Amino acid sequence: MDKIFDGISHLNDIKSLNEIEMKKLSDEVRAFLIEKVSKNGGHLASNLGVVELTLSLSKVFDFPKDKIVWDVGHQCYIYKILTNRKDDFDTLRKFGGISGFPKRCESKYDIFDTGHSSTSISAALGIARARDLLKKDYHVIAVIGDGALTGGMALEALNDAGYNKTNIIIIINDNQMSIGKNVGVLSTYLNKLRLNPNYNKIKYEINSTLSHSNVGKNIVTSLGKIKDSIKQLVVPSMIFEDMGLKYLGPIDGHNLKELNEILTKAKKLEGPVIIHTITQKGKGYNFAEENPKKFHGIGPFDSDSGEICTTSGRTYSSAFGETLIEIAREKKDVVAITAAMPDGTGLKNFANEFPNRFFDVGIAEQHAVTLAAGMAVEGLRPVFAVYSTFLQRAYDQILHDVCIQKLPVVFAIDRAGIVGEDGETHQGVFDISYLSHIPNMTIISPKCIDELQVMLKWALVQNFPIAIRYPRGGDNNNIKLLPVQEVKKGKWEVLKDGRKIAVIATGKMVQHSIQAINLLKDKKEEVTLINACFIKPLDEELLRNLSNKGFDIITVEDNMVKGGLGSEVLGYLNKISHSRKVINLGYRDEFIPHGEISILYKLFKLDPQSIKHEILKLL
Amino acid sequence: MDKIFDGISHLNDIKSLNEIEMKKLSDEVRAFLIEKVSKNGGHLASNLGVVELTLSLSKVFDFPKDKIVWDVGHQCYIYKILTNRKDDFDTLRKFGGISGFPKRCESKYDIFDTGHSSTSISAALGIARARDLLKKDYHVIAVIGDGALTGGMALEALNDAGYNKTNIIIIINDNQMSIGKNVGVLSTYLNKLRLNPNYNKIKYEINSTLSHSNVGKNIVTSLGKIKDSIKQLVVPSMIFEDMGLKYLGPIDGHNLKELNEILTKAKKLEGPVIIHTITQKGKGYNFAEENPKKFHGIGPFDSDSGEICTTSGRTYSSAFGETLIEIAREKKDVVAITAAMPDGTGLKNFANEFPNRFFDVGIAEQHAVTLAAGMAVEGLRPVFAVYSTFLQRAYDQILHDVCIQKLPVVFAIDRAGIVGEDGETHQGVFDISYLSHIPNMTIISPKCIDELQVMLKWALVQNFPIAIRYPRGGDNNNIKLLPVQEVKKGKWEVLKDGRKIAVIATGKMVQHSIQAINLLKDKKEEVTLINACFIKPLDEELLRNLSNKGFDIITVEDNMVKGGLGSEVLGYLNKISHSRKVINLGYRDEFIPHGEISILYKLFKLDPQSIKHEILKLL
Repeated sequence: MDKIFDGISHLNDIKSLNEIEMKKLSDEVRAFLIEKVSKNGGHLASNLGVVELTLSLSKVFDFPKDKIVWDVGHQCYIYKILTNRKDDFDTLRKFGGISGFPKRCESKYDIFDTGHSSTSISAALGIARARDLLKKDYHVIAVIGDGALTGGMALEALNDAGYNKTNIIIIINDNQMSIGKNVGVLSTYLNKLRLNPNYNKIKYEINSTLSHSNVGKNIVTSLGKIKDSIKQLVVPSMIFEDMGLKYLGPIDGHNLKELNEILTKAKKLEGPVIIHTITQKGKGYNFAEENPKKFHGIGPFDSDSGEICTTSGRTYSSAFGETLIEIAREKKDVVAITAAMPDGTGLKNFANEFPNRFFDVGIAEQHAVTLAAGMAVEGLRPVFAVYSTFLQRAYDQILHDVCIQKLPVVFAIDRAGIVGEDGETHQGVFDISYLSHIPNMTIISPKCIDELQVMLKWALVQNFPIAIRYPRGGDNNNIKLLPVQEVKKGKWEVLKDGRKIAVIATGKMVQHSIQAINLLKDKKEEVTLINACFIKPLDEELLRNLSNKGFDIITVEDNMVKGGLGSEVLGYLNKISHSRKVINLGYRDEFIPHGEISILYKLFKLDPQSIKHEILKLL
Repeated sequence: MDKIFDGISHLNDIKSLNEIEMKKLSDEVRAFLIEKVSKNGGHLASNLGVVELTLSLSKVFDFPKDKIVWDVGHQCYIYKILTNRKDDFDTLRKFGGISGFPKRCESKYDIFDTGHSSTSISAALGIARARDLLKKDYHVIAVIGDGALTGGMALEALNDAGYNKTNIIIIINDNQMSIGKNVGVLSTYLNKLRLNPNYNKIKYEINSTLSHSNVGKNIVTSLGKIKDSIKQLVVPSMIFEDMGLKYLGPIDGHNLKELNEILTKAKKLEGPVIIHTITQKGKGYNFAEENPKKFHGIGPFDSDSGEICTTSGRTYSSAFGETLIEIAREKKDVVAITAAMPDGTGLKNFANEFPNRFFDVGIAEQHAVTLAAGMAVEGLRPVFAVYSTFLQRAYDQILHDVCIQKLPVVFAIDRAGIVGEDGETHQGVFDISYLSHIPNMTIISPKCIDELQVMLKWALVQNFPIAIRYPRGGDNNNIKLLPVQEVKKGKWEVLKDGRKIAVIATGKMVQHSIQAINLLKDKKEEVTLINACFIKPLDEELLRNLSNKGFDIITVEDNMVKGGLGSEVLGYLNKISHSRKVINLGYRDEFIPHGEISILYKLFKLDPQSIKHEILKLL
C-alpha cells in the first residue's frame, strides 16, 4: 500500500488530507520516527507525543508565514520531517547534520532557536509585538510543556502576555512530565483540569461560543445554568483567566478532529489564548509509553525489543548519586536538590532512600539555588545537582544569594565540558568562566570518578560555597591513574615529574593529557603533568616553583579559554613575572556545534593528539 | 512629652505596648526616619510604608528566634532601628557603617542578605525546610512587595511552596508599585483584590473561621450564602488558593489592630499562608506620599520642603534616554524595554513619546532579554536598558537566546562599575566578566557621555548583540576630553602618545587615567593613553604595535580583574609573546562593600592617585 507520507513533500500537502488520511499519516510518521531514532538515538518519547499536534498545526496554520516557537525544542522532529528535512533525517544530531533542536540557520521554518526550557512564550511574545509594530499579519504560536511552565521566565512572560493582550497562541503540551515526573502546584493544578471530564466538556462547549467576548462574563452567565458544578467550572481555568489569558481545553492531543477544531477556533480569537492539550509521552510505541523517561533522550536501541544497544558503564552521575547516599547515611544534615532532573543527575536512589531530604523543585534553577542558600543558613548541607548548561540560569543567585553570604552550598555540576549531540545550547563549556570571577567561590574538578567521590566528601565538611564540575559519561578504562589523594584546599596533584614543560590539566583533560604524554614516547621525560583539581583557588606555590625552575606551561581545560583556568593561571604567572612560555588550551570564542564528542574534541584541538602536538611545539 | 521610642531598647519592649502606644510609636519612628534619611539619604518611601507592619511583626513574633526575610531588603530600616541599630543609624550606607540592606554579618536579627528582588520566598522556604528537618520550632516569614512578585524566581518559589505545604508566612506588601508603577497581570490581579471592599470584608470573615480546614471547601460553603457576589468572592483569591496557599486579606497595612489580628491568626495556621497587606509608599510624609518615586532612593533633602539638596548635572542615564528618543524619531524599528526601571534607566521620556514602542515587563530581566530576542528575530531593534547588577539575572538568556542566534539586541548597561552606598549586592563590577566569554557578544564602553551617544547610534545599525556599559552619575567636568571620534569596530582611541608605558583604560577609568597622568607632571611624556572603547573585540593591531615597540602596559577597568578587560589583554599579549610588563588594575577577588564611591575607589586603588602610583612603579 502506498504511504501517504511519501506524497508529503511540503506542509501544504497536509492541508488537503481528510482526518482518516491524517490518522494514517500519523501512524506512518511514528514508524519513521521510531526507525530513525532507534538507529541514531535522539529524543523519542516527547516527539511521539506531539505527532498529531504537529500535523494539525501544519494543517491549520501556514508556516513559515505563521511562526511557531517550540519550547525546549527537542520535540521538533516531526516538524523538521514535515519541513523539507525528512531526507536529512539520518544526519540528525550528527556532526555536520541537522540539529536535534530548531535552528534558524538550518531552515526558514525554524523561527527561533531553543534548547533550554521556558523561553518560548517570551520569544513568541517578542515576535508578535514586532509583527504588530511592523503592521504585519500572521499568527504566532508557542508550544510549551507543562514542565517548562514551572520555569520562572515562562511565568514572567505569561504575566506580561496577559497584561499586554497581544495576539498570541500558547499551546500547553501537557504530558504530566518534565523529563521525569512533574512537581509543583502548577502540575497539581493542570491535573485538576485533566481529571474533571465534566468540567472539560462544559468548558469546551462554553468556549465554542466564546469568540471575542469576555471570558469572565461567560462564566458568570453560565453559573446560573450549572448549579451543581460551580466549583468544577469556576476553579480550574481561573489561574489562566485571572492572568488575562483565554483558556481553551483541555483536549485530547492525540485526537486530530479536536485538535483541528480548537486550533481553527484559536486562530480567530483576539488577545493571548492558551490551548491546553493532553498528550502522552511515547504515544504509539509501547516501550516508550511504559517508560517515557528511558526514551526521553536515548542512544540507539532495538526497536522490536526496546532494548538499548549499548549499556554504559559506571558514570560520574551514578557515582555521584551513590556517594551522596553513603555520605547522607552518616551526615543527617545533607540534603539534595534537583531542578526536574532526578534521573539525569543520578539522584533517583537518593530520592528513594531519603524522600524527606530530597527536593525536586521543578524546572526552576533560580529558586533551587536560593532555596539551598536558605537551607544552608539554618545549618543544612544542601547539594544542588545540576547540568553545567542549566546552572547558567542561576548565575545571579549563585553570586547574590550564596557567595556574598559565603554559604556552604555544594554545586554538583554534571555534564561540564562538551556534551556532544545536543549541541550549542547544551555544551557545558562556560561554567568555569561564569563562576571563577565570583568572590568566595571554590571550584574543583576530579580527574576521575574515584576522585569525584573523595571531593564530594571533602566538600560537604567545608564552610564555603563549592562547585564540583565533572563530565558526562564515565572514565576511559584504558588509562591508568594513581590512587586518589586526599583533598587539600588549593593544592594540585603532581601526576608525573618532568624537566621542561608542565602540563596543567583539569577534569577530563587530565586523562587526555596522560594519553598525549604517552604519545610523546621518548620525549615524555621532559613533561611534568599536574592535575589541577582546584580551579579556584590556584596552587600558587606550585606555580611559583615551576616558574622559578623555568618551566614552560600548558594549561588544558574543557571550558572556554576566556575566563577559564588557563586565563587565571596566566594572570598569576604574569604577576610573578614568569618569563617562559604559557599556552592555554580550551575552547576558542565560538559556540560549539552538535556532534559526537570525539569529533568535537578534534575540531577544537583538545584530543590527545592535538595536545601532544602543542607539547611538541615547545620541545 | 516623653517619647515611647526612647523606652524601646529591644523588640520585646514593643510587646507590652497597647495599640494607642504603638500608634504613637509609629509616629515617632516616622519622624526619626525622615530626619535621618533627610540628612544622609537612603530609601525613604518604602520604609515609611512598612512602619506599622514592622511594629506589628515585632509585637506578634519573637525575633531572632522567628526568622524574617525582607525581599529586596531596602525596607529594613525600621527593623534595624528596632533591633539594636538605632544609635548607629547615622552611619547608614556610609563606608564602615551599617548597611542599607539586611546583613547577616551585621546582626543576628538579619537572617538572610537581600538586595536583588524576588529572592525572599525561596530563602524563607529553605529556612523553613531546614527547621522541619532539624526538628526546630519557629516561624518563618517572607515580606515581599507586589512588584517583586513579578520576578520569575518568586513564582518558581510559590509553585514549590504551595506544593510542599511547608509552614511559612508570606506577606505581600502591596503598595501598587515597584520602584515605579507596577505592570503585568499580577498587578491587575492584586488590584482586583484591593478594589473589592465587599469581597475583602467577606473574605476576611471567612478566614477568621478558617483555622486548619480546606479553603476551597469554605468557599463552596459560602457560595450558597452570598448569592450576588459569587464572582467577587470566588475570583480574586483563586490564584493563590489554586496554588495551594492560604490567603488572608487584603487588610490595611497601616491599621495596627488589623495587622496584629491577622498576624496572630497566621501564626496558628498550618501550611503556607499569604497575607495581603495594602500599604502606601511614603506613608506619613506628604512629599513622599505625593511623589514616592522621588523618595524611593534619595540623597539628602530638606525635610520641611521635600527639596533635594544637591541637583545633579547631566547623567549618563539621561543622555542615554535623550539620545534614544532622537534615534527613535528617525528609526521606526527601535523599541525600548525596561524591567520596572523606566525612571532609573532614563527611559521615562521615551515612554511618553513612544508608548507603543516602550515595554515595561516588570521585574523580569530574563523575560525582558528573550522578549528582545524575539523582537530582533522579526526585524525590530530592541534596546534593553538595565542596571549592570540586575542583568546578572539574565545571563543565560543573553547567552542562549541572543548570542547563539547572534541577534541584534542592544544592552544598555547602566550603573556599570561601583555604585557606592547600595553596597555588595548592587555593585556593577561583574558585567565584563560575565559577558566577555560569551561568543558573538560585542562590548563597548564610552569614556564620556558624548561618546555614549555616538556609540548608541552606532550600535543600533549593527547586526549583532552589543552591550554598552556606562557608569552611574555623570562626567567630571574638570577633565578636558577630545571631541568624540567615530566608532570603528574593534578600534581603540589613542588619547595621548608617549614613549614607554601604555595605559589602556576603559569607560570611567579613562577619566581617572587622564587625571593620573596629569599628576605625573614632567614624567607624563613617557605615557601613552588609550581609550579602550571596545572591551570585546580588542584592538589587536594596536596591541601588537605597542608590544613591538616595547611598551609596558597597564590596563585599568571598573570591573573585576578576573575575566575582565585586562585579563583579555594579557591573554592576547601572551599569545603574541609580549616581553614587557603587563599590569592589570581593577577589582580584586572580593565583594565590594557599601560606601561613598570616592572612598571605594581609593580602597581598591582605582583613584587617580593610585593609578599614578602604579605608573610610577614602571618608570
